[in-house]
Amino acid sequence: MDFSQPPEISALAARVRAFVDEVVIPAEARDHGAHGPDPGLRAELQAAGAAAGLFVPHVSEELGGLGLDLRGQSAVFEEAGTSLLGPLALNCAAPDEGNMAMLEKIASPAQRERYLKPLAAGAARSCFAMTEPAPGAGSDPSMLRTTARPVDGGWVIDGRKWFITGAEGAGFAIVMARTGEQITRGRGATMFLVDADNPGWQVGRVVDCIDRVAPGGHAEVALEACFVAPDAILGEEGLGYQYAQVRLAPARLTHCMRWLGVARRAHEIAIDHAAGREGFGSRLADLGMIQQMIADSAIDLQTSRVMIWHTAWLLDSGADAQKASSMTKVHVAEAVNRVVDRAMQICGSLGTSGDTPLARFYNEIRAFRIYDGASETHRWSIARREVKARATAPTPAAPAAQAAPAAGVRG
Amino acid sequence: MDFSQPPEISALAARVRAFVDEVVIPAEARDHGAHGPDPGLRAELQAAGAAAGLFVPHVSEELGGLGLDLRGQSAVFEEAGTSLLGPLALNCAAPDEGNMAMLEKIASPAQRERYLKPLAAGAARSCFAMTEPAPGAGSDPSMLRTTARPVDGGWVIDGRKWFITGAEGAGFAIVMARTGEQITRGRGATMFLVDADNPGWQVGRVVDCIDRVAPGGHAEVALEACFVAPDAILGEEGLGYQYAQVRLAPARLTHCMRWLGVARRAHEIAIDHAAGREGFGSRLADLGMIQQMIADSAIDLQTSRVMIWHTAWLLDSGADAQKASSMTKVHVAEAVNRVVDRAMQICGSLGTSGDTPLARFYNEIRAFRIYDGASETHRWSIARREVKARATAPTPAAPAAQAAPAAGVRG
Amino acid sequence: MDFSQPPEISALAARVRAFVDEVVIPAEARDHGAHGPDPGLRAELQAAGAAAGLFVPHVSEELGGLGLDLRGQSAVFEEAGTSLLGPLALNCAAPDEGNMAMLEKIASPAQRERYLKPLAAGAARSCFAMTEPAPGAGSDPSMLRTTARPVDGGWVIDGRKWFITGAEGAGFAIVMARTGEQITRGRGATMFLVDADNPGWQVGRVVDCIDRVAPGGHAEVALEACFVAPDAILGEEGLGYQYAQVRLAPARLTHCMRWLGVARRAHEIAIDHAAGREGFGSRLADLGMIQQMIADSAIDLQTSRVMIWHTAWLLDSGADAQKASSMTKVHVAEAVNRVVDRAMQICGSLGTSGDTPLARFYNEIRAFRIYDGASETHRWSIARREVKARATAPTPAAPAAQAAPAAGVRG
Amino acid sequence: MDFSQPPEISALAARVRAFVDEVVIPAEARDHGAHGPDPGLRAELQAAGAAAGLFVPHVSEELGGLGLDLRGQSAVFEEAGTSLLGPLALNCAAPDEGNMAMLEKIASPAQRERYLKPLAAGAARSCFAMTEPAPGAGSDPSMLRTTARPVDGGWVIDGRKWFITGAEGAGFAIVMARTGEQITRGRGATMFLVDADNPGWQVGRVVDCIDRVAPGGHAEVALEACFVAPDAILGEEGLGYQYAQVRLAPARLTHCMRWLGVARRAHEIAIDHAAGREGFGSRLADLGMIQQMIADSAIDLQTSRVMIWHTAWLLDSGADAQKASSMTKVHVAEAVNRVVDRAMQICGSLGTSGDTPLARFYNEIRAFRIYDGASETHRWSIARREVKARATAPTPAAPAAQAAPAAGVRG
Repeated sequence: MDFSQPPEISALAARVRAFVDEVVIPAEARDHGAHGPDPGLRAELQAAGAAAGLFVPHVSEELGGLGLDLRGQSAVFEEAGTSLLGPLALNCAAPDEGNMAMLEKIASPAQRERYLKPLAAGAARSCFAMTEPAPGAGSDPSMLRTTARPVDGGWVIDGRKWFITGAEGAGFAIVMARTGEQITRGRGATMFLVDADNPGWQVGRVVDCIDRVAPGGHAEVALEACFVAPDAILGEEGLGYQYAQVRLAPARLTHCMRWLGVARRAHEIAIDHAAGREGFGSRLADLGMIQQMIADSAIDLQTSRVMIWHTAWLLDSGADAQKASSMTKVHVAEAVNRVVDRAMQICGSLGTSGDTPLARFYNEIRAFRIYDGASETHRWSIARREVKARATAPTPAAPAAQAAPAAGVRG
Repeated sequence: MDFSQPPEISALAARVRAFVDEVVIPAEARDHGAHGPDPGLRAELQAAGAAAGLFVPHVSEELGGLGLDLRGQSAVFEEAGTSLLGPLALNCAAPDEGNMAMLEKIASPAQRERYLKPLAAGAARSCFAMTEPAPGAGSDPSMLRTTARPVDGGWVIDGRKWFITGAEGAGFAIVMARTGEQITRGRGATMFLVDADNPGWQVGRVVDCIDRVAPGGHAEVALEACFVAPDAILGEEGLGYQYAQVRLAPARLTHCMRWLGVARRAHEIAIDHAAGREGFGSRLADLGMIQQMIADSAIDLQTSRVMIWHTAWLLDSGADAQKASSMTKVHVAEAVNRVVDRAMQICGSLGTSGDTPLARFYNEIRAFRIYDGASETHRWSIARREVKARATAPTPAAPAAQAAPAAGVRG
Repeated sequence: MDFSQPPEISALAARVRAFVDEVVIPAEARDHGAHGPDPGLRAELQAAGAAAGLFVPHVSEELGGLGLDLRGQSAVFEEAGTSLLGPLALNCAAPDEGNMAMLEKIASPAQRERYLKPLAAGAARSCFAMTEPAPGAGSDPSMLRTTARPVDGGWVIDGRKWFITGAEGAGFAIVMARTGEQITRGRGATMFLVDADNPGWQVGRVVDCIDRVAPGGHAEVALEACFVAPDAILGEEGLGYQYAQVRLAPARLTHCMRWLGVARRAHEIAIDHAAGREGFGSRLADLGMIQQMIADSAIDLQTSRVMIWHTAWLLDSGADAQKASSMTKVHVAEAVNRVVDRAMQICGSLGTSGDTPLARFYNEIRAFRIYDGASETHRWSIARREVKARATAPTPAAPAAQAAPAAGVRG
Repeated sequence: MDFSQPPEISALAARVRAFVDEVVIPAEARDHGAHGPDPGLRAELQAAGAAAGLFVPHVSEELGGLGLDLRGQSAVFEEAGTSLLGPLALNCAAPDEGNMAMLEKIASPAQRERYLKPLAAGAARSCFAMTEPAPGAGSDPSMLRTTARPVDGGWVIDGRKWFITGAEGAGFAIVMARTGEQITRGRGATMFLVDADNPGWQVGRVVDCIDRVAPGGHAEVALEACFVAPDAILGEEGLGYQYAQVRLAPARLTHCMRWLGVARRAHEIAIDHAAGREGFGSRLADLGMIQQMIADSAIDLQTSRVMIWHTAWLLDSGADAQKASSMTKVHVAEAVNRVVDRAMQICGSLGTSGDTPLARFYNEIRAFRIYDGASETHRWSIARREVKARATAPTPAAPAAQAAPAAGVRG
């Protein structure tokens, strides 16, 4: 067991930190967009990120990236995440980052050329169209209602999606549609690559949401008689949900990394405020209730960080990381929300104002307890796995004690 | 970064698990003592532990141990901890375990022969006499009141100690006494090795406490004109608190490992109960509120485990682990208390009874939020380190945002 | 709306407070019993309580009590509860107190003479035999397995009960048994008065439990061919669970009152300790983290108190108090546990020792989150009532906003 | 003790509820302002409120109000608060409501005519200018830096204020300024009535804040050589902080009432969503983890409500309500934040969108844990009062137990 970081990763993380401090944070004041920064600002930051040699760190070198595995990404994405604009500048923000990772694994050579390359180059954006309005597929895949019917020369997709991040302005979409009677054990649904100019792909209302950093926001989409050719299928027919799992576990984890960066920044802002401001005859930083908040946030950040590292290692090793991924998601999502909340409390009125980024962070980070699996859904999944694991445990946990006479046990 | 466990450690942990399941847990019903199991039971279990080749795993092979570093101990002590009697059987329970670790580092060859050898062999018990009743040294070392005065041919120690775990029945004590005017920066106090038959060493009342697994309990001790020879000094004169730090960080961590084992056992008992018991038409394990408790406990156990691993790696690497050690202590102590509490709630009336070990665990584990540094003391220390670290940070956390015009930041 | 207390109630509460301070608390050191204080101590305290004119305050004056309604009891029982022995001294401890309250409402004149009178006089103890071991009736009444069959000249009861508080040493029991095919809507079960010398009533093992203040402890009971005459039926045949509800809501509330007293005492002990003890250059009471604990406990105590008052008023008024009773039970049970836990933390090592009553309180109070309906059971019931109440609400909560265009809502 | 509500208050609350449902909530979709609804919408709603006979319910009938005491306001303001626009419609929103209440108590007849009358009629808005930027008066009054110097024919005020709610657009301000050397025991500062057209009163930047319902937002204000005549003094010279206390306790409580309404609406939205939406084969409302959130919110709402009632009664009775007011503020502010957070979690993605008002509520309600005394400031104050109260308690809390021999206490 060894937690040491390769020196090249440490050096890279330090370069990202400097880049964010010097280039990205100063640009935050120009981020006025209701649904992500305006395209000009995004392009400017991406050019700077590329010039700094920090672009698409998660993508292979062949495609212009740095080829980091998830452990390497842990170090780099946390730093990038200290500004909401950092991951955009490095082109490692959701949903493009997760889409690139999945495409690199399962796209055909032609799909790779046509979709992945421009995505990795920052020339196009993408979206992942899985979630549906009630009563369709939310947390529960078996409720998927969008269908793809085989027709002469291809498929016709029909259905409605919502909360599709980045749909507005995306060059293409990855669409989950039902191609079988039943969705069971990861079979029955298929992923399709759909160009944005397909007339059957109709982006509707962009929903006003508590989080607004993602370019294009979260949109409603209608698929109406959307015809695609057979080569639009991503991977194999019927395996859509298996690929979604392939995409989701790492994508969820990179979200954790980036939000950890946001929370750390909030924590640092709070400490700087507490160390500088007087009250009741002491610095805030010397008051016990403030110290308690600082310490609790330090613990929340560090437990989050080591959980991320461990899950990254599991995924890098190809081990089963389902339970670890769920535990990390729940813990990190709740911990980083607590950290930002405490930072705002420490900063008082200032923290509720636009003079710090805390109120913005408070809004952006809230949604992470809901998307990529709500905390409740992951808890349900964790509990089921825990119970199942005990069912096959070699020995009961309490044999002797239960047989013991009561007297004396606490006597 | 690599979380893999050497195969010999995994194998050893599996052997410890089997030993605890087969030998130690069946003996729990015979543990009736008010202050630890009776000496006969302890001796029987230690003989079994030695016969199984699992004795003093933390001690060097030269002294009959297995020579595990702290990462190895993480795996083994968690397993041993699944029974309160497990660490006693392996002779790796507090306070002897921490005393052995410190003696192995700083004892003179003669002290090693006289004190460490019998301790490692299980032939003697020991105690660590630092804490004093108010207004003496509790969490704050500068309040140490026990003094050692140089006299002809040695030193005379006077003072009062309390909550000295294992003093009753110990063969010797390690006593912290003031030998300078002021206690500052780890200087001014000295550790002495005091034999139990020294007439100046007087063990008084054994205090009835919420935790009662430690042999000898927690005693009040008076040192009255306690004369010791110069070779009673452990390490160098004046450096007592520096050694205490050397002892405390690993000793605190091994406590975390053992309590993690206790909490895991409680969790397993609760799952077994929930999986077997019906209520309101479902298994308890299928009810959402029970699943939430199971998932939260799984997360508490896993975050605790990775925090322990990380601090163990830091200490094994000789890195500064003070903040990590405090964060791990606070997190683990509180997490394991929550796990045991939830386990009791899941088991209902049965959980409050002596028919499971949960009520016993609930009592034993409570004190860990207080000793080895109360949660509040560690939080204070963590916050001070956090604030200090920011004071030397290269860049403020919020420069651009604070300069930004308010409009647009959230607009 | 008027929170003022009648002056005679305030005066009575002050007298109870003085009695507990002067008579009961000094007797605590003699409470060594594993299952309640020994009978001699209990008798001595009851004699003192009677001599002070404070006996059975909840019982009508006709039976020697003070005839307090639940609002009056709120004031008096909180004071009595500041010692675990206080309610015993005033003969208003569970389960006798709840049994008296129920008997006074539904016993026949003959039953009143034979059972209630000696109970109110402290001459006999009683128990309430409803709970059964799995798979019988725990939280879910429909699982009741104890049966009463009509036979010539009476009934024959068969079944097993457990966690029957006070069964050992009781003069009689109130036994819940199935007398119909199905238990629905409060019908199908009947309560029987069973004398302790009935050969079919067999008290077995007294289970060792985390709480041990109740005289007689918590016992397992077997009913084997237990014959009773027709006049053993309490109230009407088949209405047992309706009476149980009549008993449970007030009995649960008086538990809240007494535990509030225990928690207040713990809080006061902690404050006294914090105000007297120095650490890190300040009184503990001047340290922010300690102040936070003190304030949080003050809030927990006060929210508990007003919730109790409100539910007492509802019950005194004959209003439907089911939801209020559940909310008060959950809140108070969890709040008082937090208060005692914080008090122990503030007192540090001393708090874990027998030199304060805190460790004892910590154990006694834990079980209250489980009995009289576990927190989870009450939460389930509260949620169902909340959802049901909305189903009949005149207007949806969010009509206009849902119809609103998204733009502008957070603009 | 009597919790019953006078029938005329119940009837009035029902009328307010109907008015909010029928008139105010449908207007929410037109509330687009960055700093409160636009003046036209506000005027329209106030006209409707007046027409419904529900205007300024807290003001005396002589001034056109309904003359409700704080208990009456509890019922009415909670209903009004179920829409953020409700209190504006009834002209009982902060800061005007608190200013009216204070003016009605201490304004001279001339001040009453000139300032209070138009305020009560909705013809003018007002602000309360106390808070200052660091290092001035935030939570700690002794740091007040704005000064008023006596000059020929009046006073000259100089200083800077910030977070002055409603300053932009107000007709007049109540300004706190230092008129003595030291601020001690409520003496040394004075309140002045300053007209908005006074050239020395300069409203600067309106700070962008997380809460934006207040008309005029939160502004920075400079007072530069601001001359006022002697009759600008409100009440007596030097007693400014005593009046501030008079204003703050009720003003804080009416905030609690209104936010309780917001939280209750959020809770109702969540229940309606949970009762209607399917997932994993059940209604959300039938899933245990959702039920737990619903129950916890029900308890948070009810504990908040009874705490408000109790403090209202204390204030109506003229009793010392300082500690009660602080406890109620901390509890309610934190409880209502939890309720809104849970409601958003239950509603999932929908809850984070502008299609429900929850995201808006989440922002508006957050600041209440900071203004009117941050939770930490109130906790500090509560703890000090608790410690002080014990210092004069007749008897120590743990005399006998401390003297007891350790053995037997838990044995």
